[in-house]
Amino acid sequence: MGGCVLIALFTDFGTGGPYLGQVRSVLGELAPGVPVVDLMNDAPVFDPRAAAYLLSSLLDPLPADVVIVGVVDPGVGAVERAPVVVEVDGRFLVGPGNGLFSIAVRHATRSRSWRIDWRPERLAPTFHGRDLFAPVAARIAIGGSVPGQRVDALPGSPEWPPDLPEVIYVDGFGNAWTGLRGAALGAPAVLRCGGRTLQRARTFGDVPPGVVFWYENSCGLVEIAGNQANAAQMLGLSVGTVFEVCAQ
Amino acid sequence: MGGCVLIALFTDFGTGGPYLGQVRSVLGELAPGVPVVDLMNDAPVFDPRAAAYLLSSLLDPLPADVVIVGVVDPGVGAVERAPVVVEVDGRFLVGPGNGLFSIAVRHATRSRSWRIDWRPERLAPTFHGRDLFAPVAARIAIGGSVPGQRVDALPGSPEWPPDLPEVIYVDGFGNAWTGLRGAALGAPAVLRCGGRTLQRARTFGDVPPGVVFWYENSCGLVEIAGNQANAAQMLGLSVGTVFEVCAQ
Amino acid sequence: MGGCVLIALFTDFGTGGPYLGQVRSVLGELAPGVPVVDLMNDAPVFDPRAAAYLLSSLLDPLPADVVIVGVVDPGVGAVERAPVVVEVDGRFLVGPGNGLFSIAVRHATRSRSWRIDWRPERLAPTFHGRDLFAPVAARIAIGGSVPGQRVDALPGSPEWPPDLPEVIYVDGFGNAWTGLRGAALGAPAVLRCGGRTLQRARTFGDVPPGVVFWYENSCGLVEIAGNQANAAQMLGLSVGTVFEVCAQ
Repeated sequence: MGGCVLIALFTDFGTGGPYLGQVRSVLGELAPGVPVVDLMNDAPVFDPRAAAYLLSSLLDPLPADVVIVGVVDPGVGAVERAPVVVEVDGRFLVGPGNGLFSIAVRHATRSRSWRIDWRPERLAPTFHGRDLFAPVAARIAIGGSVPGQRVDALPGSPEWPPDLPEVIYVDGFGNAWTGLRGAALGAPAVLRCGGRTLQRARTFGDVPPGVVFWYENSCGLVEIAGNQANAAQMLGLSVGTVFEVCAQ
Repeated sequence: MGGCVLIALFTDFGTGGPYLGQVRSVLGELAPGVPVVDLMNDAPVFDPRAAAYLLSSLLDPLPADVVIVGVVDPGVGAVERAPVVVEVDGRFLVGPGNGLFSIAVRHATRSRSWRIDWRPERLAPTFHGRDLFAPVAARIAIGGSVPGQRVDALPGSPEWPPDLPEVIYVDGFGNAWTGLRGAALGAPAVLRCGGRTLQRARTFGDVPPGVVFWYENSCGLVEIAGNQANAAQMLGLSVGTVFEVCAQ
Repeated sequence: MGGCVLIALFTDFGTGGPYLGQVRSVLGELAPGVPVVDLMNDAPVFDPRAAAYLLSSLLDPLPADVVIVGVVDPGVGAVERAPVVVEVDGRFLVGPGNGLFSIAVRHATRSRSWRIDWRPERLAPTFHGRDLFAPVAARIAIGGSVPGQRVDALPGSPEWPPDLPEVIYVDGFGNAWTGLRGAALGAPAVLRCGGRTLQRARTFGDVPPGVVFWYENSCGLVEIAGNQANAAQMLGLSVGTVFEVCAQ
């Protein structure tokens, strides 16, 4: 295996604060020459389940040989969970074995999993992202082997469904991403949500201003959105809001 | 043409969310070795007019051969507007032909424009930044030709004035950037704004604490600011607020 | 001296806005091939004293030969303060001589200081970060000499104590970083703060939900935190809040 094209960060650290920069610095030092990009750092906080569907949807537009540091890790240093690496269709994911990567595995054509057994000299109980996951990702990114044992199944994978009819992320414009792939729905389907029935549209401009609808977004997920309107506010949507899919 | 020094992003995507990271990943893959920097990602939302003055002011401090992905694109996928490339004094701008680049062209010594006629295999109707503009920018950045037709005038350029006596951006400290270049004003000019008359100063420390003034900021624009005071709050300024320029 | 491994930014510019991107662009142009990482850009605003303790704590996890652009610089262009470079245990810090680097020097095994005497052609009175500090940092990063005079003591270093029993930063989860190193305290110490007595724990999961405690964080500082609770809100903590250290 040669080196990878780039390293991408997917975390719930937020865009500010002193945490991300330390992860970036470790990667910059240990994987010189490999660009590090912030894929997304406001993933659903402490919510590996919602984050798992989001991360899975973001993989497809990424380069074929990216290495992703994925950290949504409530209870780091306290809760027992294995550090893991999983390769899904050529992309490597490094992070906690708490289900965060399980939907990506579920939707992959092929995958391989490892339990990381390497431990760094310094391992802060609250910052495995910096001390454990970043060095492992850097090592893989520069062509090194995974420092762990191959395992048959990804450790810590819960029984989550392949598609989740819930809101998993609300963006800055009030558009609500869901854990449901558009390809899993028939075109005539409508959504029932907050007492409202939402029709499908192709894009924002296809409905009048102020109208809320659903569409298959640029990552292939069903998204509840409004034309020049904040859908999340109008319908009271937040991460975890459940909706219903009905034939029209 | 050889490769460029760096690629810069200028968007209204905000600093969080899942959108920027996908653009960065495409650039990282298609323009390996070219650094990608976030120039600014909280440009005035859905407001190509205000953003056009802001972007133009930010060009001067940039390297001579930068490629900029500029995306402030309301109605993407619905409104008819051409995707464009424009070269202004050696710098390439790639994005929607909705006026966003028109002030840069206006202030340039020389410029050349293209209408992009290439289309990618996957073109999400709501995410041309990722699927169309980023790949074109990457191609130019690594020394490729512009995939489009040279045109005499930049498509979709509105009749906006070269200087705009309006607030175009308010920063986190309450300083209000305007679309007016300091060089276009005589030193003795005063501004009238919200019933107040503002004198010119060289910098913050030149006026007493709490006093609001205007000065030519680090990008050459007239900026309304306060010494240890939030000028935007004190005067009720936001993007679009109009003011008057008077001889003293 | 050869080139450095990476350049890191530590500022109070915030994560949005048009300022950071200009600094990044200058570095990208003048130090080609050297990765630039955002270490932290929401340092305590206009507060070089709190920022000095924070920056010092962040140095240890960084590569040995990083160059840091550090800008927390109230009164730039008005207040008289020298631009400085300081080398602490191999790492270079470039920025204002206002005390920002003084705690790093205090805790270093060895340090060397310079007063920058180079001035750029264009020096905006309000943006030394872009016009002065970034070019100097880039020059050092690619192996050039420091453009200044060696001085015996870091210019503008106040008499701040090596450890500061005050809150210096509150992160997005309400955890309050302090200017006190954990190593400076005995394990049995308790903190008194807002009428409450806080016990030490190893990490979040070691106390029941809702309980506030202190621990030595991943950067070696005493941090006041709550398990699934916002410690800053519960105790009314913000930058500058003082607390007391007591033997148990």
